[in-house]
Amino acid sequence: MTAPGRALEHMRAVAPLVQNITNYVAMNPMANILLAAGASPAMVHAREEAAEFAAIADALTINIGTLSAAWLESMVEAAAAANAAAKPWVLDPVAVGATAFRRSAGERLLALGPTLIRGNASEIIALAHRVDSGKGVDSADAVSAAESAATELARATGAVVAVTGPVDFVTDGTRAARIANGDALMPRVTALGCALTGVAGAFLGAGCERFDGTVAALAYYGLAGEIAAAEAAGPGSFAVRFLDALAGIGPDDLDAGSRIEGLAG
Amino acid sequence: MTAPGRALEHMRAVAPLVQNITNYVAMNPMANILLAAGASPAMVHAREEAAEFAAIADALTINIGTLSAAWLESMVEAAAAANAAAKPWVLDPVAVGATAFRRSAGERLLALGPTLIRGNASEIIALAHRVDSGKGVDSADAVSAAESAATELARATGAVVAVTGPVDFVTDGTRAARIANGDALMPRVTALGCALTGVAGAFLGAGCERFDGTVAALAYYGLAGEIAAAEAAGPGSFAVRFLDALAGIGPDDLDAGSRIEGLAG
Amino acid sequence: MTAPGRALEHMRAVAPLVQNITNYVAMNPMANILLAAGASPAMVHAREEAAEFAAIADALTINIGTLSAAWLESMVEAAAAANAAAKPWVLDPVAVGATAFRRSAGERLLALGPTLIRGNASEIIALAHRVDSGKGVDSADAVSAAESAATELARATGAVVAVTGPVDFVTDGTRAARIANGDALMPRVTALGCALTGVAGAFLGAGCERFDGTVAALAYYGLAGEIAAAEAAGPGSFAVRFLDALAGIGPDDLDAGSRIEGLAG
Repeated sequence: MTAPGRALEHMRAVAPLVQNITNYVAMNPMANILLAAGASPAMVHAREEAAEFAAIADALTINIGTLSAAWLESMVEAAAAANAAAKPWVLDPVAVGATAFRRSAGERLLALGPTLIRGNASEIIALAHRVDSGKGVDSADAVSAAESAATELARATGAVVAVTGPVDFVTDGTRAARIANGDALMPRVTALGCALTGVAGAFLGAGCERFDGTVAALAYYGLAGEIAAAEAAGPGSFAVRFLDALAGIGPDDLDAGSRIEGLAG
Repeated sequence: MTAPGRALEHMRAVAPLVQNITNYVAMNPMANILLAAGASPAMVHAREEAAEFAAIADALTINIGTLSAAWLESMVEAAAAANAAAKPWVLDPVAVGATAFRRSAGERLLALGPTLIRGNASEIIALAHRVDSGKGVDSADAVSAAESAATELARATGAVVAVTGPVDFVTDGTRAARIANGDALMPRVTALGCALTGVAGAFLGAGCERFDGTVAALAYYGLAGEIAAAEAAGPGSFAVRFLDALAGIGPDDLDAGSRIEGLAG
Repeated sequence: MTAPGRALEHMRAVAPLVQNITNYVAMNPMANILLAAGASPAMVHAREEAAEFAAIADALTINIGTLSAAWLESMVEAAAAANAAAKPWVLDPVAVGATAFRRSAGERLLALGPTLIRGNASEIIALAHRVDSGKGVDSADAVSAAESAATELARATGAVVAVTGPVDFVTDGTRAARIANGDALMPRVTALGCALTGVAGAFLGAGCERFDGTVAALAYYGLAGEIAAAEAAGPGSFAVRFLDALAGIGPDDLDAGSRIEGLAG
């Protein structure tokens, strides 16, 4: 497996242009997080240009957090354009089990073959098993409860699947890893999960191998959370220090601080 | 009257799911403020799902800050769904007197019977008296000048009405209270009023009695502003410390720090 | 030339109401930056009210960052309303060369005669020469490479043109100036360019002469960046201190700290 520090170094050297069709809550922090990490974000979602832009971007991320019928068409067209241009794209199925509209949107996007799917445990279970899950955007399930659903989803779709939470789980259906980096303050700041989707997109857009790149992105993100939490007085100061940490972590820091456990496939 | 600390403790124990149809400026800080306070925010506004979601959420808030014709339909349908499910909902009539479009939207939403109306003095006067008010989103009137309009509005609609400013005024048409907590830096940070609407919705969604719960929410919010201002070097550091203070204030802190004056009805 | 400190003092005394039709990423930081500077921001873009509001605002800014067909109509109508009411308006042609949709939107808005055009070097070159420029929202060109394009654009349209980057260039086609204030952390925070468009709009909306007012706004903004960077540990803490600095800089600080070089026309 590629050392995560080397993947970070490579991502920064490429500074990939990452197109994000994301929710209104996440747009600003996601752009700031991608800039702090060293990527070049672009929030382009209008149907008039989303697909055209997907062909010039290095990666695309699609997040259904504040979905509407019009945006769903943009998402579908942009994903198809990314596929046609052989660009990686990441699906973030926010609250996919919460309403009928989200369930059908999730299935439609899934059918387009994302390179990576990143969600919390409830979202991955809902996506894998086509089941409902009532309670909003926060996960009601533990990551461990979603590991078998993630593996099934990876095998059924060909995507790498990342379930994030206190300990993250990543699998491509054969290989798997757990990443223990992170801090309990992270879910107290909105859209940090959404923005992580962008950072993973940056690693893939830079050309990192998709399983190793996803694992590296998750370790890097969680390590930034640990560094930020060490000096934070609450979620406000945490969010500020998190951006500083994303910019400040070097490849060697990441290799020293990452807590990755490789698992048999 | 319920001690505000007890209301805060109860709100956090319930961690209510609060659906917000709010403006683009407020979405991110409102979500962060609700998370810092201990609630679970969800920004769901698309017509395809807003009403369905309102039935599963514990409370709904509606803010007309960046209104459009399409969103107005979502607001109306979501408010009706909240009513049908006996869930509390809060109306935030941003700049309601500024344009013809806002005036008609305000009247339409008012007719649906909000549980709570929270606005600045100019907005409450405009809503109560159907009058125009020219200047943007900032209040041109003092809270004291809006007290009689607030009482009239509460009696005419059955809603609790909260007029916020340097000293807040809350009334249900019979009881009334003034809350003196807060700091002059609060209006220098955008969307703090909008986000307060969400925090009040969290207290109501947790099952707090609506007059007492609103008073508690306002005292809690203002106290967080005071704590944040004590160490702030300007509006940027204030906003960061404000989130930290919302998360850090305990029930006893709130009871000790709240400055609430009960008034004869 | 008016001393920049005097322009800042005047802007704050007027506290102009600045209407912004801007992108979703910029809305929140732009509002906070305008509030910190001392102006009164309003994000009003719906077609039902954008033109009506433009007639009561002191200035209008239009940013095509997250453009859609519907918003473009609002932009065109609001710009026409600003023209009819003799109010200044500022065009921010984000990534104008990136897609066919943006190029045609840029031309349509340009034809309405903005008071000021503010962009990065790649955007000003694309707008002046109707050329494509591929890579997202970040400039691929140096400011110096855009000076002649800026002068041509100013002469062809009658607008003041500001090219911002490490050293800014401002021209009205006859006069020109370079402003050296700023810091390398500024492009690491999203939407700081977009928000600068709002600050320039505030100076013009307050009645500052448009060339001098633009130069003052750019020096003020860059100086805030320098002050913020002096104590920042990364882009997160920089953004916080930047807001504090915008609020804290006084007229004398600006006169002492501005680094403006006037140029022959």
